Amino acid sequence: MRKPRVVVLGAGYAGLMTVTRLQKQLGTNDAEIILVNKNDYHYETTWLHEASAGTLHHDRVRYDIKGVVNTSKVNFLQASVEDIKVAEKKVVTDQGDVEYDYLVIGLGAEAETFGIQGLHEHAFTISNVNGARQIRDHIDLQFATYKAEGEINDERLTIVVGGAGFTGIEFLGELGNRVPELCKEYDIDQKKVRIVCVEAAPMILPGFDPELVKYARAALEKKGVEFSIGTPLKEAREGSVLIAKSEDEIEELKAGTIVWAAGVRGSTLIEKSGIENMRARVKVNLDLRAPGHDDIFVLGDCSLMINEETERPYPPTAQIAMQQGETCARNIAALVHGKDQLENFKPDIKGTVCSLGEDDAIGVVYGKKLTGVKASFMKKVIDNRSLFMVGGPSLVFKKGKFKFF
Amino acid sequence: MRKPRVVVLGAGYAGLMTVTRLQKQLGTNDAEIILVNKNDYHYETTWLHEASAGTLHHDRVRYDIKGVVNTSKVNFLQASVEDIKVAEKKVVTDQGDVEYDYLVIGLGAEAETFGIQGLHEHAFTISNVNGARQIRDHIDLQFATYKAEGEINDERLTIVVGGAGFTGIEFLGELGNRVPELCKEYDIDQKKVRIVCVEAAPMILPGFDPELVKYARAALEKKGVEFSIGTPLKEAREGSVLIAKSEDEIEELKAGTIVWAAGVRGSTLIEKSGIENMRARVKVNLDLRAPGHDDIFVLGDCSLMINEETERPYPPTAQIAMQQGETCARNIAALVHGKDQLENFKPDIKGTVCSLGEDDAIGVVYGKKLTGVKASFMKKVIDNRSLFMVGGPSLVFKKGKFKFF
Repeated sequence: MRKPRVVVLGAGYAGLMTVTRLQKQLGTNDAEIILVNKNDYHYETTWLHEASAGTLHHDRVRYDIKGVVNTSKVNFLQASVEDIKVAEKKVVTDQGDVEYDYLVIGLGAEAETFGIQGLHEHAFTISNVNGARQIRDHIDLQFATYKAEGEINDERLTIVVGGAGFTGIEFLGELGNRVPELCKEYDIDQKKVRIVCVEAAPMILPGFDPELVKYARAALEKKGVEFSIGTPLKEAREGSVLIAKSEDEIEELKAGTIVWAAGVRGSTLIEKSGIENMRARVKVNLDLRAPGHDDIFVLGDCSLMINEETERPYPPTAQIAMQQGETCARNIAALVHGKDQLENFKPDIKGTVCSLGEDDAIGVVYGKKLTGVKASFMKKVIDNRSLFMVGGPSLVFKKGKFKFF
Repeated sequence: MRKPRVVVLGAGYAGLMTVTRLQKQLGTNDAEIILVNKNDYHYETTWLHEASAGTLHHDRVRYDIKGVVNTSKVNFLQASVEDIKVAEKKVVTDQGDVEYDYLVIGLGAEAETFGIQGLHEHAFTISNVNGARQIRDHIDLQFATYKAEGEINDERLTIVVGGAGFTGIEFLGELGNRVPELCKEYDIDQKKVRIVCVEAAPMILPGFDPELVKYARAALEKKGVEFSIGTPLKEAREGSVLIAKSEDEIEELKAGTIVWAAGVRGSTLIEKSGIENMRARVKVNLDLRAPGHDDIFVLGDCSLMINEETERPYPPTAQIAMQQGETCARNIAALVHGKDQLENFKPDIKGTVCSLGEDDAIGVVYGKKLTGVKASFMKKVIDNRSLFMVGGPSLVFKKGKFKFF
């Protein structure tokens, strides 16, 4: 009898968690496990804002997949997924086709630009290690060029961040810390630099406790961030953005750097696959399977789950993605072992902390509101916990964050 | 009686040497000394190729002027010189006019583009700290963008260096060392990177011993440098250069980075001043004064002196500039002390070493040919000697190069 084949797409939080749990729960004779990922490394999506701002080197936000995967039980295929052929139970990659018995889709998110003109061409997004390096180097070059051309174009030093959600705010916090370093590096008067956050919604960090939001805004303003709130970004151009200040008033803001951090959607491969979805996210069953597809699990940013208490979707967080990975692994192990009673996924939200730079944060942990050093400490505990869950203490030792105070 | 005022323009090798010697030879009551420089730091022009390639941080190639100048004897004015009004014996700067009794012009060199179309717009030059930072960051961004856009445009990784003279060759040597680091930093296959040196003359390093030139070329080729020799660069465009491969054949070479390192001229301020000059350089008298101007000394890259043995001009080197500074200081001290017999400048050329990266070099020192580790060692001795001449052992300790092997 042929061993069933489990194919996991994506080595993000969800996919990697699934694989590292599956490799413990399944014996070599139980199933064949294949992990497919574009890069030979995993990166911490929730740390990318640091690599993008240049406050943390990108090698600190990634680690080798082969270092955490048991290669005697898991075959790692470095390949780009090009198509998911549900009817044929196979995945098309640039390294050839891969057939599956059980499929786990953890392909992560893509930037959602809501059809805003010019964003794709003129704005960066904080989406992966390659993009993060590009943002960092672009900002460096703007500062260098400003100086080299004789300080004639102050707008080179303006950084526009579109979006005051989680990613936007965390990136602004890092920029607030990075700009003084950049000014020192390039002999530039810090007064010349502007960091402007443009947000369509009437508030920053929607869903966060208002008191914490107030703290966050004041902390970022102290670091030099300007906010333009309730003012949709209408268009991005070469070197500027158009902002709707009111119904009739459009302002052009010149900026050397434009970063779009205002939204994510699931993978376009989901849409292409024909699996029922909403903005490329699959509203999964309670056992994390795609409706109508008993052999397909969808996790992380590609999945959509409604929180019954709030009647709103759970946010696409690393915390939930990792918990989904654990449940998914147990459910696949059950299927492989011939059981048809699967476990329902129940998120256990321990808390949410939003960093405001290395030295400051806000958050709610186990129901308790935190700010400043305490919140910043908890943020690092959470970041280290992600490493621990996947790679144990040795990974925490290698890549962890220990500059607590 | 009013003290005579000595104004020194430029804190390069020549100007700074003049000032640090003058402050020892003149008492506070003898003369007023004013040093005018655009930046508050001196930079080692002969190390800029390292900062440009990114192999040495720019803070290692510069030091504070106030750290080496005796501020109780020398007034330092941070200002950009805008005009030299010879008839009125005054210098116009962006911080106001400065009158002089004795003037020392050590304003350094500017890039000479020989009227080649597009060079000014599309090529970088290794001319100062600001420019060096820009080249480094531009190359970084090209590598990052190559990766972020999906490795579709290999030409981003091509670096064209125009000129196989001293600066061009030294820069190529650093690039040869830097590229493997860049490939590691950006996860790029080194085979994709091209470093191409384009030179109009039929040989590299004209004036150097042919055996050493052969060594240099082989060493650089081993580091991945391609040479296109005897092929003038005809035009620089956005993202490419045109190279005359023969009389009838023009080749377009696409390149993400174009650096022009093929020639220098004196300062345009010299031309503007009306002082007799050739390509902005003044053919000075033996006592280093400008012909017809008994109160003006011209040193370094702004000066031109014929070597009577070879009947060719001495090359514009740091070694000669510093020696000129010493002679100039003695001559000014003599004038201030009422002597009219000035000393003639005699260059004492101890040797010339051309670096091929941190780990390799060629050179002739005290008449002896050197290559490899020995030459590389001598290069660092020479670099440290420049520091020692201006700032003594403490400056060598702070900024010196000690990674000898």
